[in-house]
Amino acid sequence: MSAYAELEIRFARLADIEGANAVLSWDRSTQMPDGGATVRGRQMATLSVLAHEILTQPAVRGLLDEAEGEALNDWQAANLAQMVRANLAATAVPADLVGRIEEARAATEMAWRAARAAADFSQTSARLDALLGLVRQSAACLAQAKGVSRYDALLDQFDPGLTYAFVAPLFDDLEAFLPPIVDEIIAAQAAGAVPVMPQGPFDPERQKAFGAGLMAELGFDFNRGRLDVSHHPFSGGVPDDCRITTRYDAADFSTGLMGIIHETGHALYEQGLPARWRGQPVGRAAGMTMHESQSLIMEMQLGRSKDFIAWLGPRLAKTYGGPDPVWSADNLRRLYLKVARRTIRVDADEASYPLHVILRTRLERALLSGDLAVADLPAAWNDGMKAALGVVPKNDAEGCLQDIHWYMGAMGYFPTYTLGALTAAQMKAHMTTTAPDTLAAAGRGDFAPLVGWLRENVHRLGRRYGTAELIARATGAPLGTAAFKAHIEARYLGAAT
Amino acid sequence: MSAYAELEIRFARLADIEGANAVLSWDRSTQMPDGGATVRGRQMATLSVLAHEILTQPAVRGLLDEAEGEALNDWQAANLAQMVRANLAATAVPADLVGRIEEARAATEMAWRAARAAADFSQTSARLDALLGLVRQSAACLAQAKGVSRYDALLDQFDPGLTYAFVAPLFDDLEAFLPPIVDEIIAAQAAGAVPVMPQGPFDPERQKAFGAGLMAELGFDFNRGRLDVSHHPFSGGVPDDCRITTRYDAADFSTGLMGIIHETGHALYEQGLPARWRGQPVGRAAGMTMHESQSLIMEMQLGRSKDFIAWLGPRLAKTYGGPDPVWSADNLRRLYLKVARRTIRVDADEASYPLHVILRTRLERALLSGDLAVADLPAAWNDGMKAALGVVPKNDAEGCLQDIHWYMGAMGYFPTYTLGALTAAQMKAHMTTTAPDTLAAAGRGDFAPLVGWLRENVHRLGRRYGTAELIARATGAPLGTAAFKAHIEARYLGAAT
Repeated sequence: MSAYAELEIRFARLADIEGANAVLSWDRSTQMPDGGATVRGRQMATLSVLAHEILTQPAVRGLLDEAEGEALNDWQAANLAQMVRANLAATAVPADLVGRIEEARAATEMAWRAARAAADFSQTSARLDALLGLVRQSAACLAQAKGVSRYDALLDQFDPGLTYAFVAPLFDDLEAFLPPIVDEIIAAQAAGAVPVMPQGPFDPERQKAFGAGLMAELGFDFNRGRLDVSHHPFSGGVPDDCRITTRYDAADFSTGLMGIIHETGHALYEQGLPARWRGQPVGRAAGMTMHESQSLIMEMQLGRSKDFIAWLGPRLAKTYGGPDPVWSADNLRRLYLKVARRTIRVDADEASYPLHVILRTRLERALLSGDLAVADLPAAWNDGMKAALGVVPKNDAEGCLQDIHWYMGAMGYFPTYTLGALTAAQMKAHMTTTAPDTLAAAGRGDFAPLVGWLRENVHRLGRRYGTAELIARATGAPLGTAAFKAHIEARYLGAAT
Repeated sequence: MSAYAELEIRFARLADIEGANAVLSWDRSTQMPDGGATVRGRQMATLSVLAHEILTQPAVRGLLDEAEGEALNDWQAANLAQMVRANLAATAVPADLVGRIEEARAATEMAWRAARAAADFSQTSARLDALLGLVRQSAACLAQAKGVSRYDALLDQFDPGLTYAFVAPLFDDLEAFLPPIVDEIIAAQAAGAVPVMPQGPFDPERQKAFGAGLMAELGFDFNRGRLDVSHHPFSGGVPDDCRITTRYDAADFSTGLMGIIHETGHALYEQGLPARWRGQPVGRAAGMTMHESQSLIMEMQLGRSKDFIAWLGPRLAKTYGGPDPVWSADNLRRLYLKVARRTIRVDADEASYPLHVILRTRLERALLSGDLAVADLPAAWNDGMKAALGVVPKNDAEGCLQDIHWYMGAMGYFPTYTLGALTAAQMKAHMTTTAPDTLAAAGRGDFAPLVGWLRENVHRLGRRYGTAELIARATGAPLGTAAFKAHIEARYLGAAT
């Protein structure tokens, strides 16, 4: 057996363990009784340790070196490169540091929940400070092993090869462009008609049936996945068993529905990954930027487009009844496209959302470098919000405690939200000129050509190319801000799109 | 660290992996979409391999030897004995034979499903023959390692220390006692009133709510467990996250309800295992005999008792409505205690059930020894049913294809059903003289004293004692048939009990 073949067997085993943990994680969020939390934590930690052991066995390094000299096709070579990358990341950080980070993460997350409930950052600041110190050490190890900066080492965890040098000019451009246009949109919308909220209650069972029906129309394969309820919507499981969740608000049908469309975009990506490469690193999604682009092309580019809303309106009217004007395309567009200076990121509209991300990116870089002390985070956050959006959170729960990411040690993740939005916009713009029939069909409720395009240009390629190359191949150009900016201008200030 | 302490760490890790697999197995039966079957099979197989590797690492043998010389308290010593037993079983069978059995088991189980659907044993006989050959080899390995006979080596897998020499006289006695008394009961019931079936449909949601309410009254801790639906009812999960299932027949509320009472008995045992010994071998249930005794003391000894049915009747009437006489204690007793010559084991009444088990025990011993050829199984089965119960299955699906056990390589399991029934009867008889208040309270719907007794005398002891000793300690005498026989006579031919 070749060294490469031997590695495929080991990595398939690794994928089995990670896949098992993905199902256990889904179960924890959707099914598990509270009393099962301790033993579940142990089970998942043990599987993580086993996965780490498989990845760092001394023999792996030798096999990787040997495989580098073997004759491999392009896919195999890309697979081997991802194996090398995974091994490097796993071996770069000493096992005892990994263990200390796990412990600090669990303690900080728990303190964060209490602090957020009390809207009091001071209850978790010491924990966050300790966790940050460990993350800094881990980032230093990864940076040395990868030969990059500490922040780039963190970015690379979520998007292979992503660098701050790539991110910075895009974000600078958006930071200059967005504030004035957000003002302009808000002023224009204030001068227009006031949207009318459809009146509930909206039966959760009916919401679920409607959402599941829409998922199936969008192309979600229910033979290889499920829809369930959890406190925070997510897309989990494995490609042949995708588990997405949403939550239903009886007073507002739209949050649950948009959650479903968003998570369906993630799930279509997973279900469309190359079957030939199941369980291998190259068979995984390219990274979080591309993943977010797939959810946003569904939720934002398609789901809030004029044609889609016109298609959706009569279906909503039939499902929930009530006065017709509420379900008109014009009224629904006013509801779905409402731009406002919101303090909470997950409630933000697509025009102001990048400003939330850019602030977080700046703050996490400052925290990592030490330029910003943890104790000064609430003030820096509030100042940043005031500068970017002209609003100040009324307390820490609405401010620097709103997102879990840092409190579970995830730094370098936030940028991918906005890179994903830029990618989705650029993909849509490219399709407008190269595949207009595809978009026209989607506007009529025939989503197969659109999903087929994504399958062909994104999903089936797995991790064959890095994110930047994949975007360039799919859209004919390197990632930029032009398409996103044009999209915001056209949708909110120009002809409806 | 002592060798014993090091072993506890390794076995806790093993329990985490096995617990993860238990959740994955529950998910497969209750949640997983069909398309997830292949990857789930891989995940579970990989976790099983990892568990096997942990158990058979060369260092384990040395640690076990070293720990034998360390100062241990009684529980630790019992724990170590179970570790030795697990290691012995895992190392006795060569890894390649384990792998071949897994493959043959999967193939045979699939062929069995088709054969049962077609009511044609010949469709699976070759597969079963091949699997049997492998099971025979495995049994020979285990027998040599344990220094017992092949059949005893198989019995020991499900009930540590159980031997055929222990089983045989009990079964001989029942085989002489039961056929005439079954005839007598059938004749007596034929001379009595005909039971009236409550008329459905019984809404599954209402059945579930009623069943869950009863579970809570019986003492099931919903903070550490769930009730769901699966094709075949089972009790799974782990002690702090017990997952039981049932199925609801809209035409007949009673099968779902009795399934729930039965599985609740299993779950109460798991939830009552010693918290101090979670994840250690000595913290597990004593074996399948004791497990079945806990389900049957709930379903049969309590659940079909005169007092319980009198308590249950008004609750059923209130839940499902309909004419009162249907819900009278007399009518419900006629329904629940109906004895008949049934061909299907899982449909059998408690009086004839052991005859099904005794036949299977004889046949599996003959298959294992080679005295019975696989090709002759259908005829031997039908002859055995005629001799034991006076009925002949109308086809193989009703005959030797009805149970999955052999087709998944499980031989030596069947006896535990009847040993469990004998144990439950003996436990109840012992409580009648030593703890009458406990039974009186249960008859009034106050189940806490009964469950408390089981907690004290069975559950909290885990695997501290072998099955035979545990029974003798709990009931004051070695396991025998007297209590079961007296129970059948009293309930079905004497004063109602």
